[in-house]
Amino acid sequence: MLIVPVLLSGGIGSRLWPLSRAATPKQLRSVLGRHTMVQATALRVAEMDGVTDPIVVCGASHGDPIRTQLGEIGVTPATVICEPVGRNTAAAVLLAALAAPDDAMLLVLPADHVVTDVAGFRDAVALAANPVSAGALVTFGVVPTGPETGFGYIRASDVEAVVRPVEAFVEKPDLATAESYVASGRYLWNSGMFAFRADAVRAEIERLAPEVYAAVSASVEGGLDGEEVRPGPAFLECPSISFDHAVMEHTDRAVVIPLDVGWSDVGSWATLWEIDDKDGDGNVVRGDAVLIGSTNSYVRTDGRLVALIGLDDVVVVDTGDAVLVAARDRVQDVKAVVERLAGRPELD
Amino acid sequence: MLIVPVLLSGGIGSRLWPLSRAATPKQLRSVLGRHTMVQATALRVAEMDGVTDPIVVCGASHGDPIRTQLGEIGVTPATVICEPVGRNTAAAVLLAALAAPDDAMLLVLPADHVVTDVAGFRDAVALAANPVSAGALVTFGVVPTGPETGFGYIRASDVEAVVRPVEAFVEKPDLATAESYVASGRYLWNSGMFAFRADAVRAEIERLAPEVYAAVSASVEGGLDGEEVRPGPAFLECPSISFDHAVMEHTDRAVVIPLDVGWSDVGSWATLWEIDDKDGDGNVVRGDAVLIGSTNSYVRTDGRLVALIGLDDVVVVDTGDAVLVAARDRVQDVKAVVERLAGRPELD
Repeated sequence: MLIVPVLLSGGIGSRLWPLSRAATPKQLRSVLGRHTMVQATALRVAEMDGVTDPIVVCGASHGDPIRTQLGEIGVTPATVICEPVGRNTAAAVLLAALAAPDDAMLLVLPADHVVTDVAGFRDAVALAANPVSAGALVTFGVVPTGPETGFGYIRASDVEAVVRPVEAFVEKPDLATAESYVASGRYLWNSGMFAFRADAVRAEIERLAPEVYAAVSASVEGGLDGEEVRPGPAFLECPSISFDHAVMEHTDRAVVIPLDVGWSDVGSWATLWEIDDKDGDGNVVRGDAVLIGSTNSYVRTDGRLVALIGLDDVVVVDTGDAVLVAARDRVQDVKAVVERLAGRPELD
Repeated sequence: MLIVPVLLSGGIGSRLWPLSRAATPKQLRSVLGRHTMVQATALRVAEMDGVTDPIVVCGASHGDPIRTQLGEIGVTPATVICEPVGRNTAAAVLLAALAAPDDAMLLVLPADHVVTDVAGFRDAVALAANPVSAGALVTFGVVPTGPETGFGYIRASDVEAVVRPVEAFVEKPDLATAESYVASGRYLWNSGMFAFRADAVRAEIERLAPEVYAAVSASVEGGLDGEEVRPGPAFLECPSISFDHAVMEHTDRAVVIPLDVGWSDVGSWATLWEIDDKDGDGNVVRGDAVLIGSTNSYVRTDGRLVALIGLDDVVVVDTGDAVLVAARDRVQDVKAVVERLAGRPELD
């Protein structure tokens, strides 16, 4: 069975402002290593047996930069599908499924996640082949490293199996609930990564989300050939709904494969501080900086000098045209900054 | 009696890094209003009766920018004396005294201080005419607004008089001592502003600091005419000593005139936060900034956006090529940053 990677690159990553912008979202940026996130995602699967060129689903203006970035690492997308507007992941998954052969295994990967154990990731993907062949919709569930309240959770019914039937998808919990989830050993984080046959997922979307199916199908009735596809106006009629809400929470074909591979969705600057390398004072420093009497902080600068004096637990990000200075436990409010910048397209 | 303003512009103001640099120190910058500090200092006295064009004493590379800045406000210096190296204020005062007519009243003003009550300042200067005519060396003593430990103090013997005999100059005190000074009502801050006849101060420097007198006199034996004077190599032999240490602490001609005119030496970013206008959250914002959940902070940016989230009592200064982020009570450590940048002349 051929594996077709599907790189979902539709988000704008406003929680990583000012690095991530509408024009250049975080998946087009490097946050940890030298590769951009979309490059790292493509490389994560590029050398696996049976893997074809990827299908990319992205925003209207990101086709060219993504093709350029993938070209730099020797990857040529089979198709780049440029959505005229974002309509969430159900639509994006269906676009990819319509572009793929019936019997291909789609491996759906958000292009803005980090995985540090690539070999472990590939092992988990290999485990998906059997259930996918049997028609299952596979979701990858991250083994929790703590009681995160920012993720949805997946409850599995057989915690010993490598491929586990899904009992339920549950919404983001409060802290006490998250702690009970982690203690139980039955819950995994909902990562947004999936595997299924193209024909199987098409059929489930048609059955469970017919409005999504109708709008997306109509938007590409001219075909999905060529290096770049632009869905037509019918796409705007598609409801904006996540693939989890539209399909995974309702299908009886859901199974989950645990992932314990150093995964992160890099959801905030605090997350990035957590996963990056620190010096003896707990500081992450990327770029030209002088730190005096400062601890447990994240400093990132593109070229210009940053001096940090006498502060603990802060985030400083300098991108040349803007500077973020935030308490590390308040970085979720970066979204409020982006909202205030809505009238200033060069900065949002 | 003609009043000759002497603008001392020799410092580099490293405590206001990154705004203040060796190449463009704080006196060449605007810190509060639209004028640079040297412009504001010149304007403070320019319209007083009997005031001539000023004498400027500055660093070797600052003659041109100072002449340009003063030209912008319609002031033409009588002479700009460019010291080949800094040798502290005794040498600088003597250079000016040698350039001035015997019977002129020199009004010595550091070019990097702020005075908000200009009328009050002029009144105090007018009070100096009588004692100066009588041969006194006048120092202006700032009425303390709090128990500052960063200044030297002047003890006066007659706290009712408008011109008071000086009993003693005392070094920077500890906090308890400073509190007792302020409570006593007998102490004033040593501001570094003076008034005296040119011939009187020359004679006292020759008597009390003969090495300074010999070296400085020799360095300008070619004369002090022309719009720009550059002392010769003999200047390097001059001891580096302040005018207070060399003369004021030893002369029996010292008197002090109290000043209560919104004076500040703008000695640090914390001082600038104290004296500048604040919004309802106690923040000073100069430039393009978004503040969320932040209080009692100082944000200054030259053009680029700064976002400050969830932090109190911090200083953020963005000058386009460098960014300072500091706890407000740790801004004295800015000097340590400048020291670490010693090998990087574009930034120190």
